[in-house]
Amino acid sequence: MCAVVGVHGTPDAAIWVRRALSALQHRGQESAGIAVADGSDIRVFKQVGLVSQALPESEILKLNGSIAIGHVRYSTAGKNRIEEAQPLLTECYHGMIAVVHNGNLIDQRGLKREVLMMNGTFQTTSDTEIALQMYAQTNKKTLDERLKRIGERMKAAFAMLFLTENQLAILQDPYGFRPLMIGQIGSATVIASESCAFTQLEQMSGQEADCIRDVLPGEIITVGQDGIKATSWMDIPRQRQRCIFEHVYFSRPDSITFGHRVQKVRRKLGQLLADVSKINADIVVPIPNSGIHAGIGYAEASGIPIEWALVRNQYIGRTFIDPLQSHRDNGVVEKLLPIVHLIEDKRVVLVDDSIVRGTTTRKIVRMVREVGKAREVHVAISCPLTISSCFYGIDTPRREELIASRMNVEEIRAQIGADSLTYNTLENLFAAVSPFAQEYCTSCYTNAHPLLDKFNLHTDNGYPERRHDGIQPHPTQG
Amino acid sequence: MCAVVGVHGTPDAAIWVRRALSALQHRGQESAGIAVADGSDIRVFKQVGLVSQALPESEILKLNGSIAIGHVRYSTAGKNRIEEAQPLLTECYHGMIAVVHNGNLIDQRGLKREVLMMNGTFQTTSDTEIALQMYAQTNKKTLDERLKRIGERMKAAFAMLFLTENQLAILQDPYGFRPLMIGQIGSATVIASESCAFTQLEQMSGQEADCIRDVLPGEIITVGQDGIKATSWMDIPRQRQRCIFEHVYFSRPDSITFGHRVQKVRRKLGQLLADVSKINADIVVPIPNSGIHAGIGYAEASGIPIEWALVRNQYIGRTFIDPLQSHRDNGVVEKLLPIVHLIEDKRVVLVDDSIVRGTTTRKIVRMVREVGKAREVHVAISCPLTISSCFYGIDTPRREELIASRMNVEEIRAQIGADSLTYNTLENLFAAVSPFAQEYCTSCYTNAHPLLDKFNLHTDNGYPERRHDGIQPHPTQG
Amino acid sequence: MCAVVGVHGTPDAAIWVRRALSALQHRGQESAGIAVADGSDIRVFKQVGLVSQALPESEILKLNGSIAIGHVRYSTAGKNRIEEAQPLLTECYHGMIAVVHNGNLIDQRGLKREVLMMNGTFQTTSDTEIALQMYAQTNKKTLDERLKRIGERMKAAFAMLFLTENQLAILQDPYGFRPLMIGQIGSATVIASESCAFTQLEQMSGQEADCIRDVLPGEIITVGQDGIKATSWMDIPRQRQRCIFEHVYFSRPDSITFGHRVQKVRRKLGQLLADVSKINADIVVPIPNSGIHAGIGYAEASGIPIEWALVRNQYIGRTFIDPLQSHRDNGVVEKLLPIVHLIEDKRVVLVDDSIVRGTTTRKIVRMVREVGKAREVHVAISCPLTISSCFYGIDTPRREELIASRMNVEEIRAQIGADSLTYNTLENLFAAVSPFAQEYCTSCYTNAHPLLDKFNLHTDNGYPERRHDGIQPHPTQG
Amino acid sequence: MCAVVGVHGTPDAAIWVRRALSALQHRGQESAGIAVADGSDIRVFKQVGLVSQALPESEILKLNGSIAIGHVRYSTAGKNRIEEAQPLLTECYHGMIAVVHNGNLIDQRGLKREVLMMNGTFQTTSDTEIALQMYAQTNKKTLDERLKRIGERMKAAFAMLFLTENQLAILQDPYGFRPLMIGQIGSATVIASESCAFTQLEQMSGQEADCIRDVLPGEIITVGQDGIKATSWMDIPRQRQRCIFEHVYFSRPDSITFGHRVQKVRRKLGQLLADVSKINADIVVPIPNSGIHAGIGYAEASGIPIEWALVRNQYIGRTFIDPLQSHRDNGVVEKLLPIVHLIEDKRVVLVDDSIVRGTTTRKIVRMVREVGKAREVHVAISCPLTISSCFYGIDTPRREELIASRMNVEEIRAQIGADSLTYNTLENLFAAVSPFAQEYCTSCYTNAHPLLDKFNLHTDNGYPERRHDGIQPHPTQG
Repeated sequence: MCAVVGVHGTPDAAIWVRRALSALQHRGQESAGIAVADGSDIRVFKQVGLVSQALPESEILKLNGSIAIGHVRYSTAGKNRIEEAQPLLTECYHGMIAVVHNGNLIDQRGLKREVLMMNGTFQTTSDTEIALQMYAQTNKKTLDERLKRIGERMKAAFAMLFLTENQLAILQDPYGFRPLMIGQIGSATVIASESCAFTQLEQMSGQEADCIRDVLPGEIITVGQDGIKATSWMDIPRQRQRCIFEHVYFSRPDSITFGHRVQKVRRKLGQLLADVSKINADIVVPIPNSGIHAGIGYAEASGIPIEWALVRNQYIGRTFIDPLQSHRDNGVVEKLLPIVHLIEDKRVVLVDDSIVRGTTTRKIVRMVREVGKAREVHVAISCPLTISSCFYGIDTPRREELIASRMNVEEIRAQIGADSLTYNTLENLFAAVSPFAQEYCTSCYTNAHPLLDKFNLHTDNGYPERRHDGIQPHPTQG
Repeated sequence: MCAVVGVHGTPDAAIWVRRALSALQHRGQESAGIAVADGSDIRVFKQVGLVSQALPESEILKLNGSIAIGHVRYSTAGKNRIEEAQPLLTECYHGMIAVVHNGNLIDQRGLKREVLMMNGTFQTTSDTEIALQMYAQTNKKTLDERLKRIGERMKAAFAMLFLTENQLAILQDPYGFRPLMIGQIGSATVIASESCAFTQLEQMSGQEADCIRDVLPGEIITVGQDGIKATSWMDIPRQRQRCIFEHVYFSRPDSITFGHRVQKVRRKLGQLLADVSKINADIVVPIPNSGIHAGIGYAEASGIPIEWALVRNQYIGRTFIDPLQSHRDNGVVEKLLPIVHLIEDKRVVLVDDSIVRGTTTRKIVRMVREVGKAREVHVAISCPLTISSCFYGIDTPRREELIASRMNVEEIRAQIGADSLTYNTLENLFAAVSPFAQEYCTSCYTNAHPLLDKFNLHTDNGYPERRHDGIQPHPTQG
Repeated sequence: MCAVVGVHGTPDAAIWVRRALSALQHRGQESAGIAVADGSDIRVFKQVGLVSQALPESEILKLNGSIAIGHVRYSTAGKNRIEEAQPLLTECYHGMIAVVHNGNLIDQRGLKREVLMMNGTFQTTSDTEIALQMYAQTNKKTLDERLKRIGERMKAAFAMLFLTENQLAILQDPYGFRPLMIGQIGSATVIASESCAFTQLEQMSGQEADCIRDVLPGEIITVGQDGIKATSWMDIPRQRQRCIFEHVYFSRPDSITFGHRVQKVRRKLGQLLADVSKINADIVVPIPNSGIHAGIGYAEASGIPIEWALVRNQYIGRTFIDPLQSHRDNGVVEKLLPIVHLIEDKRVVLVDDSIVRGTTTRKIVRMVREVGKAREVHVAISCPLTISSCFYGIDTPRREELIASRMNVEEIRAQIGADSLTYNTLENLFAAVSPFAQEYCTSCYTNAHPLLDKFNLHTDNGYPERRHDGIQPHPTQG
Repeated sequence: MCAVVGVHGTPDAAIWVRRALSALQHRGQESAGIAVADGSDIRVFKQVGLVSQALPESEILKLNGSIAIGHVRYSTAGKNRIEEAQPLLTECYHGMIAVVHNGNLIDQRGLKREVLMMNGTFQTTSDTEIALQMYAQTNKKTLDERLKRIGERMKAAFAMLFLTENQLAILQDPYGFRPLMIGQIGSATVIASESCAFTQLEQMSGQEADCIRDVLPGEIITVGQDGIKATSWMDIPRQRQRCIFEHVYFSRPDSITFGHRVQKVRRKLGQLLADVSKINADIVVPIPNSGIHAGIGYAEASGIPIEWALVRNQYIGRTFIDPLQSHRDNGVVEKLLPIVHLIEDKRVVLVDDSIVRGTTTRKIVRMVREVGKAREVHVAISCPLTISSCFYGIDTPRREELIASRMNVEEIRAQIGADSLTYNTLENLFAAVSPFAQEYCTSCYTNAHPLLDKFNLHTDNGYPERRHDGIQPHPTQG
C-alpha cells in the first residue's frame, strides 16, 4: 500500500517527516526512507525495516533542510530489497529529483517500453522509476510543466510527491484512487496519505494542525519559496475512483479519508450488518484490531452485549501486509488467543471486516470453538464478498486465491466451519459512504474494471497481468 | 520482569518453548533464549531481541531434545547485553546445568559474598548466576537435594527452572511472589509464568491443555523419565506474598494468575472505581491497552457510555518495559492519538491502571485536551497510589521518581493537568482479589516491606539498595 | 586502479571470474562484484571488501550462466560505498546491460552534461554510469555499433567490459592506457587486466592457458555464440599511451603486461639503477614487496650482497591503495620491522620503486637507522622523480602532495633523512621497456599531458580538476 | 599456538598491547582481545577477526589504564566462537581476575574433573578457564602464592599472563615449551611471546626497547606498583622442553626466540640441507614465505642461483592456521603462482620448511611442473620428517593425517610427484640450535613423549586424546 509524506517550511523537515511516517506505519512496514532538500542538494536516508529502526532519530537529525519527503513501503511483489525502497533519487538535466509514490501504475509494460524507446534506463523493478525517467525526458522549463507531461503519459492509480533542490510537488492521478491531504501546521505545509499524520505532528509540535483539503484528481501542486501553486494536467474530468478499501480496512480509524471519518464509517457498517444478520447470540466479539469499530456498531444495533474476549499479541506484526505466505500462517496462530471464561458455552458472533483467502478466519473460528469452547460460532463480515483482485495498489492476492471468487456464501461458511456466515450488502456499503457513493472504486466487490477496459489491458484469461517481467524491444523502430 | 517456560515430554520441546515464549513476550522484550537437553548434552540458543527475531524457527528446529527451558528478559539494570541473556549454562561436578529465572534476589551483595568465599566465580552481573554457583557448591547426590540447599541459601522473589541433561526442575521462593503454573498438554508437562502459554500450546498442538495447579511457595518439583516428584525445601510455612501488580498490570488479561481470571479482576477494579469516582462525564475512554478492562468495568458501573477514542500505534513497543528513559519519552508521544470527533467538546473520563512518574499521563491528558479538544478531562486510576519501589522483580523506578511518593492526590492532579483525579482504594483492591487478599504483596501501595525488615536490608536512607555494584573481599577470612 | 575480468564459454563462468579476481586483488581491495548472463537475464552480486569475503564461493556457485564479467575496485574519491561498486547494471531499450570499467574518464563534467542534455539520469557518482547512459542513448541496431558510438563520445583512459543477456564485449580507449589481454583456456575466452589471471585459471582448471594478445587501442571486441568479432571505433590511429606505472608498481611480477615480463623490467631497472648509484655499501635491502625485484637487480649489478632484512607483516593491507590517509600512516609503522642483527652497524642500500609523499620512506629510513641500528642508510629508487599526478586512473595524490613536485633530490634526501638518495633516469626507464618506449605515458615523471592539452582541460592553476562535483544545467538549451 | 602480551607502566597500556598483538598476528588470526586494569576495575574488549578489525583503535583508545594484557588466538578445536576468545575475565573472592594463555594443557580431562570436584564451574570449552577456576579455588593471601598453587596443579605447556585490578603476573610451565620474553621500553615493562613485539613498540614509541630475558621454566613474576618480583613454584628443576617448531616455522624471522635469532637458524638449516641434498639443479626457488630463509641458505651452500619465482597473493590468509580443511584447500591454489619465464625448462629445487599432509606440496609441485613448465622439480625440506602430532599447543593434525607417519621418503616423493625429495637430518636440526639442543622438545620428529609417559596419558591406540569432550562425574566422591 505505502504511505507518502511531504513537508515544506520548517527547519527540521526531516524529523517532521519521520514522525508522520511513524503515524502511517500501518500502511507499510517493509522499508522507510526520507529525502531532504536544503536549497542546493538532496540527501536520502532509507533502510529496510520499521520507521523506529530504519530511521533512527540520531541519523535523521543530521539531515538539514526545510523541505523533505518520505515513504513507508510494503512490497507488492514480495521482494524485500533496499534497492526498491523509496525515495528514489537521480540527477538529470533539470538537476536533482527525488520521488515517492503511493499507488500502482497500470500498463507498466507499455509505459516502460515507451521510456526505453526514448533511451531511458531502469535500475530497479519499481514502477516509480518510470516517473523519474519521464521527468528526465521532459524538455519543459518549469517544474509544473514537467509534471503535467508526466501526468499525461502515466496511467492511473498514482499519488506522487516530488522533491527538487528547492521545491516540493504533488502529482495526483485523474481518478483519485489514493488519499492525499494537504495540511497546515504552524507555518509549515504538510502533505500526507492520511490525516492522522497531521494529528501526530500537532501532538509533536504543539502547533495546531489544520486539514486544508484533499488533493484533487489530476491536480499538480508545487510548494516553494513563492508559496503554493495548484494547477491540473487534465483537460477532461473523469469519474472519480476512490478506493473503498481505505474505509473498510486500510486507513487508521482516527483518520478522515475522502471526507469521511473512518471510525464512523466502520461503526455504521457494523450497525447495518446487524440488520442483515439477525443472529440470536449471547455475545458479540470483535476480531481485534480489524473488527473493533464494526463490532461496536453491531452490538449497538443488535442489542447483544459486546465482550473483548480475544487478546491480541501486540508483538506479532500485522497479518495482511506481510509479503510471504509462510509468515502469514505463523502469524495468525501466534497472534490471537481467547479469554476462555468469557466465551465458554456462549453463542458468539465474531465480527470482522473481510474474508480474503479464508484460512485465517477458519483458524480463528476453530480456535474460538475448540480452545474457547464456544457453543456456537457465527461470523459476520462488515463488507460484501471480496471477489476480485485489486490493480490499483492494494496487495490483495490473485483472484483464484480469493475464497469468494470460487465459492458462494454457504460454501464459504462450511469451509470456515462457522454455524452461520453473514456478509454486508453493497447497498449498505454505499450507504456508509453516502452521499458520494458513486465516486468510489468498488471493483474488489463487483469485479467491474472500467479502467482496464478503457486501456484494453485485460489478458486472455479475463484478468490483467499484475507484474512486469521483462521488456521485449518493440518490433518496429524509428 | 521476565517469563520462564519449561517443557518435558515432547520430541520438539524447543519449538513448544519458543511458541510459549511468544505468548509471554509482554513480560520481556530484551532477549530470548532456549536450552534443550537430549539426555546427554544441553544446547543453548539465545539472542537479543523479540522472540520472532531472536529465536528464528529454522534455528530452533535444529535443537533436538525432549526437555527444554526458555526465558524472555527485560533488564532491571538497563544493560542490553547478550551476556545477561538467559538461559545461563555451565558445567560443574554434577554435570551440565542450565537455569532460567523470573524474580529478583534480595541481598544479592550478601549472597555473592557467600558464594565468592566458597571460591565461586561470577562472569556476568546477573543475579541468576548465584543459583548456578550455589548448585556447583552443593555436595548432595540428587537434583532435589541440591535444589533444597539452594532454596535454603537464597533470599526471596525467585521462580527458577533448572535443566540437567535429563531432568527439568522447578524451585519456588517461600513467598510465591511470581506466578508459575504447571500444565498438561497431551503427554507433555509444561511449566509457565502465565496460563496464556498453555492456551497458546493448545492452539498450536490441537491437544487440550489443562492447568493443573500453581507451584507452591517453597516447592521443589523435578520432572524426569520417572515422572513428576514434588517436595519442599521449607520447614516452616511463611506468609504468602503474591505480587498484586500481576493483576493490575503485568499478566495478560486471558491468563489465570494466582487463581484469579485477570480480565475479571481488572473489570471489577473498574466497577469499584466508578463508585469511588462519581464524576459527571459524557464518555469513558480507556487508555489502550492498559486501561481496557478497567474502563469497561467503569462504564458498566457508572452508566456512562464507553468510546474507543484513543488509537494506539501498534508498531511502537510497550512503554513501561523499555530500559532507557529517552526511549520511553519518544514512545509516549508517538504511540497514542485521539479520534477527535469522538472527544471534541465532551467531558471525558480517562481510565488507566496506574500513574508511575506522571509524565506519560500528563502528556496524554494534554493531548486529549488540546489535540482531542475535550471540554473536561478527568482521570480515574483503577489502583491506589504507587508510593514505593519494588524489590522483588518489577522494574518500577526508584522511589523518588514515583510521583505519588512526593505529592498528594491534589498535587498530582495539578501536575498532570486533569480536571479531577480519582484513585481506587486499597480496600477495593483487596476486594477484587478476595477471598485471599492477605496473601498478596502490596508493598508498592503501602511501602510496608516485611521481608527487608526481616533480613535487615534497609539502607541508611530508609530504602534498600537495588543494585549490586562491586564486591569487596571480606576483611577477615576463615 | 581496479581490475576487470570477462569470461565466455564455460558453464561456471562466475566461479572463473571470482578466481581471476582473486589473482587481481592487488589492483583493488575496496569492493568486488560479478555479473552473470544466462541467455535471458543478468544477475549481479557485489559487496564491499576483499574477494574472499565479498564474493563467498557458496553465493557465486548459485549464479548460473556461461558469460560473466567481474571487477575489483579501489576508490579514487575516498568513498567506500556499495553504491559505487561495480558491475553496474541497468535495463534500457536494448535490454539489460552491465558494465565494468578500469580507467578514469577525463572531462567527466563535460561528458555528464552531454548525457544529461539528452535526458539521461545519474544515480551514482561513478563515471562508469556515463557509459551506461550513452549506451541507452544510442539508436544503433547491433552491440558493436552501439559501442562504437560510446567510443566516439568518451574521452580517454577507459578499458571496459560490457555484458548483455548473451554477449560479452570489450571497449578500449584510443591510447591503450590500461592493459587488457585476451586469453584462451580450454574452450573458454577470458579477458583480464593482467595475465596472472590466466595463470590462475590454468592452475584452477587444469587446462592450458594461452595469452592470445593485448586488446588494441580503439578496439571493440564482441564475444557471443557466433564467436569473436573484432573491429575498431577509431578512424585515425593515435599515439599509444601505455601506463609506465604498470611496470614500475602496479602489475604483479608474474604478469606479462604490454608485452613485457614485469619481473624482468623491474630487475632491469634495478641493474641500471646500480650503475647510476655507485654507492659503497655492505648490504642491499629491498623494501618488501615493492622493491624486491629491483633490489635483486641492484645486487646483481653492484656485486653488493642482498639481505632480506625487512620483515613484512602480511596481515596489514597494501599501503598505497588505502583511500584514507589515516589508515596509510598507521599501516606503515605496523607493516615493516627490521631483522636487527642483519642490519646493525652495516652500510645499507634500501631499494624501492618510488617515493610519493616521502612520509613512508622517511619512516622506514628512520626505523632502519634507529631500530635496526644501521651505520649508513642509502636510498635508491628504481624510477625517476614522481612530479605529476595521474589523470588516467592511478590514484596518485594531488600534485602539491608529491614531494618531488616541490623539492629537488638533495632536499628530498634531507627530508627523508637518508645518507644518500639516488633516482633512476628517464633514459633507463625507457631502456627497460625498449624497443617501444615512445608508446608509454610517462606524464607522472615528465608532467607532459598532451591529452589534457588536446581537450583544453587544464584549470587555472595549471592542473585539471580531478573530481566531478555537481552539474549546473547549461544556460541555454535547444 | 596463540600469542600473549602484557604491558605495565604506561598510561596507554591498551594501545601498546594492540600494537604488539599486531606484530604477533602470525601466531593467531581467529580472535583478538585486550583486558585493561585501571586500579579498581578491569575491562575487556575482544572480537573475532584480525587485530586491525577486531580491535579498532578508536575503541581501544577508550580503555584507560596503565596495565593491560592481550591475546591473539587460533582454534585447536575448529570453533570460531567469540565465547572462546581471550582474555577470559571473572569475579571471584579475590576480586577481578583476567587471564590469557599460550599453550595447551595436557590431561585437561583430569584437571577439569579436579576443579569440578571442588564445586568449580565451566562456561566455555577453553582449557584456559581451568586456570581461572583454580585461582578462585585458592585460599592464599597474595597473588604469587595463588599462582604457585596453580602452577603445582596444572600440567605442562602453558605460558599465562594474569591481570588483577592493579597487578600483572606471569606463570610459566616447568618445561618452558612456549617462548615468553620480558622487555623494557622506556619505563614500561612488556611481556610478549616473541621479541618482534618489542621492536614494534620501539618503532611506535621512539623509545629504545631492551629484551631483558626469557621467562624461566616454572617462574612466577608479578609486576605492580612495587616493581617486579620473580619467584618459582617448582621445587625440582626439570628437563627443558622448548618447542623446536618455533624456529622451524612459527616465530617471525626477526624474533630472537629461546636465545637464537630465528632468521639465522633457518638459513643455517638451509645450508646444512644443501649438504644433504646434493641435487644438480639450475635454480633454487624458496616457497614463500615459509621457505625464504632456508632457501637463501640452500643457495649459498650449494652455489645454485636463487630465483624468486613464486608469487604469493598477499590477500589470501596463512594456510597452516586456518581451522577448516576446506578453507585450506581453496587457499593453496589461490595463493601461489609461478613466474613462468623464470622456471620454464629449468631444473628447480623447491625449498620449504615442512611437509604436513602432503596435499599442499603436491599441488605446488604439480603447478611448478605443469603451469611453470619446469623440466625437473626437486623438493628439499629444511627439517626431518614430521611423524607425530603435537600435544603442547601446535595445531598439527592427528597423527594419521601426517603423511610421514604412514609413508617413507620414497613413498612421499612419489605421492607429491617430485623428481627427488630430501629431508634434513635430526643431527642438523640440533646443530642449528646448538649448544643447548637437548633443551628442545622434538617430539614431532621423534614421536618420543616423555611427558605423556610421565602422566600415563597415552590412550589405547598408543596416542593420547587431544580433545576433552564431556566429563562424567567421578563415581565415588569424598
